[in-house]
Amino acid sequence: MTKASEELKAKGKAAKEASRRMAYLGTDIKNKALLNIAEDILKNKGEILAANKMDYEEGEKTGLSAALLDRLMLNESRLTAIAGDVRAVASLPDPVGEVYDMRTMPNGLVIGKRRVPIGVIGAIYESRPNVTVDITVLCLKSGNAVILRGGKETIHSNTAITKVIQEACHRAGMPEGAVEFIDNTDRTLVDEMLKMNDVIDLIIPRGGAGLIKSVAEKATMPVVTGGIGVCHTYVDRSADIQKAVAIVYNAKVQRPTVCNALDSVLVHAGIAKEFLPKMAAELNKAKVELHCDERSFAILKADKSLKLVPAVAGDWGKEFLALVAAIKVVDSLDEALKHIEKYGSGHSEAIITEDYASAMRFLNEVDAACVYVNASTRFTDGGQFGLGAEVGISTQKLHARGPMGLKELTSYKWLIFGSGQVRP
Amino acid sequence: MTKASEELKAKGKAAKEASRRMAYLGTDIKNKALLNIAEDILKNKGEILAANKMDYEEGEKTGLSAALLDRLMLNESRLTAIAGDVRAVASLPDPVGEVYDMRTMPNGLVIGKRRVPIGVIGAIYESRPNVTVDITVLCLKSGNAVILRGGKETIHSNTAITKVIQEACHRAGMPEGAVEFIDNTDRTLVDEMLKMNDVIDLIIPRGGAGLIKSVAEKATMPVVTGGIGVCHTYVDRSADIQKAVAIVYNAKVQRPTVCNALDSVLVHAGIAKEFLPKMAAELNKAKVELHCDERSFAILKADKSLKLVPAVAGDWGKEFLALVAAIKVVDSLDEALKHIEKYGSGHSEAIITEDYASAMRFLNEVDAACVYVNASTRFTDGGQFGLGAEVGISTQKLHARGPMGLKELTSYKWLIFGSGQVRP
Repeated sequence: MTKASEELKAKGKAAKEASRRMAYLGTDIKNKALLNIAEDILKNKGEILAANKMDYEEGEKTGLSAALLDRLMLNESRLTAIAGDVRAVASLPDPVGEVYDMRTMPNGLVIGKRRVPIGVIGAIYESRPNVTVDITVLCLKSGNAVILRGGKETIHSNTAITKVIQEACHRAGMPEGAVEFIDNTDRTLVDEMLKMNDVIDLIIPRGGAGLIKSVAEKATMPVVTGGIGVCHTYVDRSADIQKAVAIVYNAKVQRPTVCNALDSVLVHAGIAKEFLPKMAAELNKAKVELHCDERSFAILKADKSLKLVPAVAGDWGKEFLALVAAIKVVDSLDEALKHIEKYGSGHSEAIITEDYASAMRFLNEVDAACVYVNASTRFTDGGQFGLGAEVGISTQKLHARGPMGLKELTSYKWLIFGSGQVRP
Repeated sequence: MTKASEELKAKGKAAKEASRRMAYLGTDIKNKALLNIAEDILKNKGEILAANKMDYEEGEKTGLSAALLDRLMLNESRLTAIAGDVRAVASLPDPVGEVYDMRTMPNGLVIGKRRVPIGVIGAIYESRPNVTVDITVLCLKSGNAVILRGGKETIHSNTAITKVIQEACHRAGMPEGAVEFIDNTDRTLVDEMLKMNDVIDLIIPRGGAGLIKSVAEKATMPVVTGGIGVCHTYVDRSADIQKAVAIVYNAKVQRPTVCNALDSVLVHAGIAKEFLPKMAAELNKAKVELHCDERSFAILKADKSLKLVPAVAGDWGKEFLALVAAIKVVDSLDEALKHIEKYGSGHSEAIITEDYASAMRFLNEVDAACVYVNASTRFTDGGQFGLGAEVGISTQKLHARGPMGLKELTSYKWLIFGSGQVRP
């Protein structure tokens, strides 16, 4: 076993031990740790920003794209925002300890469930150093220990940040090992980490589709996958056109680089001629490039100011993450449902309709984490759904689906209060 | 691709398609299918028993143990019991469709969750042909399609049973593909099945520890593992001795071959001399073999009628599944908690105590699916916990922990009712 492997094993063991104590740590200590983290991030901004500068300069040298460089870059205002987010999580209710479904059985056994932390959460993520803080505070608040493995491109930033976090937690009286950081960028360590199912109870991968797929396939412990959104908005024949234009515009333009942004518009043929020109004119204000199927292309081609491109097969089911939308005319709600079934990623899907039966069929038949009637898919977010914060958006069906908040980072145990009962 | 692989792929595709319709199939059709299954199993008992006889005779030839032969054997009364269980599941409430946590956000969006099936469940299991019926009806009642892969040793029985099930479902109006059975016993097909994460949403392995470990490691989709129980009962210094003897006896003897049966007794040194002889005398009525640590051996050795064996290291953390128990004297609750932390499998753990603080510490600090005070661990069971039926006992912390009933075979989707909302 290499030295790095030994260190990884030791960190895993320390996190597991810490998690035992974290499970029944008081809310006061957890909140104190979070407030310390917020304070210390600002107090140590000099060191953190210096470390971040090293990452940035190395990124420039190795030719990272401007977008990636922007993602990894920290500055004073970003640190202030991060500290503010930490304080917001501190102010949320503690999900741990809730007792529910408690009832007395005919034999007198009193049986119920208590919400408990999951244990040790492994986070594997890319580029943005704020994820280090983000995931850590959500794990700590929900009573979990966390093992962090960030990207190579932010190793200096993450090293500086986790040092600050660890000291802040220690000062609050949290057990050592509650936050472990893998400061070695050797890729084989990720594979080793994914085999540590004796220590890690859940892996959360955050990053591109490649990372998520690879983690899901290699992990020997449960994984919550998500964050890939191929989102459709279907404009029904009965749609209110003004609402439909505003919703499509918002879903595509308000923040095009995120997973809940619109990728494809499906339009009922009965409304396409009236709706599409209005939609296209609105989207054109933001210079959205429209990848049109034949029928929508025919309707829109007269307007030479639009950025029109004939759609290719690869446009359906594509997450654009940019000011690009695929447009398709369909002949029926059934065709729209089939298209979404084939190309959707199970993230967020919307129908714009004034017809009761269409709305109900869409809600019933679309199999996605979030199904909308007459609203923008951009609302798929822990904060917007009232969860206070989010670890990510799950597109799998096990454990949690859609936005994952603090409660979704917990499990439960059954408590059974007896008075001598035996099974007949 | 081999012909068997092609067939597997086709079955996967059919199950996926069926699952789309199953998701919103009426409760009446699901119940009708279940009642048909119960009826047809009895109507076709001749064929089923003839097929089972082939399995039994082949098992005898290949030298299966008497225990395994008994597990795979069907007869008229076992079929009657199976049919009764199916009817019981039909009479349970449908878990699908429940809408909960519905609330109106400040912007007027009405947001909530609806309980939906998971989709396609893959079941990989060994020996007992009743598992074929059992898992199938629980999956169908909860709106899931199922792909069954039973053991080689029951291939004829399972083929006959699934044929009956498929016809019964068809007659009730269930979509084709809702129940798929892999009638090829080639082991490589299991590996292929575990890679079909585009089709299978959840894998449930049922069988020995080897099967479960191998499935968990190879599966590229979520797995619910469980069914391995290393269960401790800790007899505290303050225990009521009469209760403690009765509970230990019940936990060990009532059904020793199952996962919630007692494996180890930990006894506080302050009560050991009084308690152990009474416990041993009681357990001796069922000829339980006691694997004793030095201190318990010293206390019990005078009674020559007992089946005493000095404990070896491998006895701690062992699931005996037989009339054997490991006995250890501990000096404190802390030592008991440490022992359970080290050797427990996270299934069911019990304390016998009349001391409030000890009870509370045990409930708080033991990390297991089910934690008991003053009751037999044998109660860990879906029926006993009021779930009506169970797919198994989960010892992982994600999605479901402890007994899994119909509800635990569901997921949810978020429903969002808007009136034109866009995100600011």
